[in-house]
Amino acid sequence: MGTIMAHAFLKQGKRVAVWNRSPGKAAALVAAGAQLCDSAHAALSASPVTVFVLLDDQATHGVLGRPGVMAALAGRTVIDYTTNGRDEGLALQALVNAAGGLYVKGMIVAYPRNVGHRQSHTLHTGDHEGFEQHRALLEALAGQTMFLPWDEALAFATVLHAQAFATMMAFFEAVGASERFGLPVAETARLLLDTSRFFISDALEEAVRRLEAQDFAGDQARLDVHAGAFAHIAQALHAQGAWTPVFDAVCGVVQRAESMGHGDQDIVAATQVFAAANPPETAAQRPI
Amino acid sequence: MGTIMAHAFLKQGKRVAVWNRSPGKAAALVAAGAQLCDSAHAALSASPVTVFVLLDDQATHGVLGRPGVMAALAGRTVIDYTTNGRDEGLALQALVNAAGGLYVKGMIVAYPRNVGHRQSHTLHTGDHEGFEQHRALLEALAGQTMFLPWDEALAFATVLHAQAFATMMAFFEAVGASERFGLPVAETARLLLDTSRFFISDALEEAVRRLEAQDFAGDQARLDVHAGAFAHIAQALHAQGAWTPVFDAVCGVVQRAESMGHGDQDIVAATQVFAAANPPETAAQRPI
Repeated sequence: MGTIMAHAFLKQGKRVAVWNRSPGKAAALVAAGAQLCDSAHAALSASPVTVFVLLDDQATHGVLGRPGVMAALAGRTVIDYTTNGRDEGLALQALVNAAGGLYVKGMIVAYPRNVGHRQSHTLHTGDHEGFEQHRALLEALAGQTMFLPWDEALAFATVLHAQAFATMMAFFEAVGASERFGLPVAETARLLLDTSRFFISDALEEAVRRLEAQDFAGDQARLDVHAGAFAHIAQALHAQGAWTPVFDAVCGVVQRAESMGHGDQDIVAATQVFAAANPPETAAQRPI
Repeated sequence: MGTIMAHAFLKQGKRVAVWNRSPGKAAALVAAGAQLCDSAHAALSASPVTVFVLLDDQATHGVLGRPGVMAALAGRTVIDYTTNGRDEGLALQALVNAAGGLYVKGMIVAYPRNVGHRQSHTLHTGDHEGFEQHRALLEALAGQTMFLPWDEALAFATVLHAQAFATMMAFFEAVGASERFGLPVAETARLLLDTSRFFISDALEEAVRRLEAQDFAGDQARLDVHAGAFAHIAQALHAQGAWTPVFDAVCGVVQRAESMGHGDQDIVAATQVFAAANPPETAAQRPI
């Protein structure tokens, strides 16, 4: 990911100094115009801002412990895209701040292929000043960039990834189930994507509008009507021997929403079931 | 839904004859230019094609049993958007065919607000000839229309709805969970939608490309890397007391995919877990 990010900077005409514990790994970057540094300290000193992309928190501390690195942090900003936990990030921020530098923790919401894409998103936290100073630079990595305070950023990243990956899995499950019906997999996947795109994007836009307006009126399709339809869909899937844990969980949610009295509301009322405090322990809740 | 469809035809300049068991319900349609008929037979006779939107299969048989209706079907096409089962639809097709008419079963992939929308989809089955004859007319109800043979159409509708509703529920779950983290719900919903849109659409396009190419190489992000990340996400959600049955099911799927040897492949390999014959009975499979 670090190499890909450095290439994204170079592609947009930025001057990039790179350092890697294995210098050979930087050959393609050097060929693309990067300046190869022979130490972490030299790379840090070459610029007011340094992007870290390391294996883990331990590797980050390894780099910070190299000769001259801490001293070179004064007046500089570290943007850290290394995967680490909340407390690890806060400890790094304290360390960099103590050395007179700024620490920005970054998370990229993109697969490697979309680093540098105008429509990719990054999320940042840590020192807001460091983010604002280098915002234009960070837009070379992802056109859409944002900053949130620590706890909000981590919470948002958590629910964002839960949503995105559950959406992907819902698609994979439908594609897999289509094979149980004897449908051709690749063709069905393409047809599913094309046919559901507008229906889903419109439904989610409408859901957001309703959440903003706190409008849960069941004037388009009531939750209990959805619940009835879902039961038929699940039955049709199971009749083919399809394994559909994701859709089964969906059925469990609408059943619970009905039992909580949301049957005559819009399906977006399901958000209130998830938000409700102390949900009961159910089969679906236990980690599998 | 029938009233909305009739309005969609009128809006596009079609001549529409309507009949309703309660004539008062058609007042707005008459004001919009529809011709009110005093019998089902008169409405059927007014046009080479009639759209049925009734409560259920029993109601459809009620209409077909009215005086003169069966005789009026000769040489005419019925497009039936009434919700019914496979065998009910096949029986209606046989009945209409025996009377010398064509029967097309339609399913609209849209909430009432999007009937008549250029980007809405309809799916049809039954008599292909009837569909092709009236295809241009049906595009007034949904710009994107398709025809599949009976079993393919019903299977596709099943997996399509499973995917679409599971996707919506994944979003609702994330929004609900965000409330457990203390994030403002409506603002977070909007931010989630904006931030995940490109990431998800790109991931699904890439998944379809990989399914078409049968390319499951783990060069972007391996399934086992996803599985590790998912476990952290689930932990963070549960630590806030969030009820996340949909994402929990997702975690169960990648765990199973790993145990089946797909760990070093792309996450799209999860489709093969769903498609595999005779999956074991698990907590996630049992209807909740």
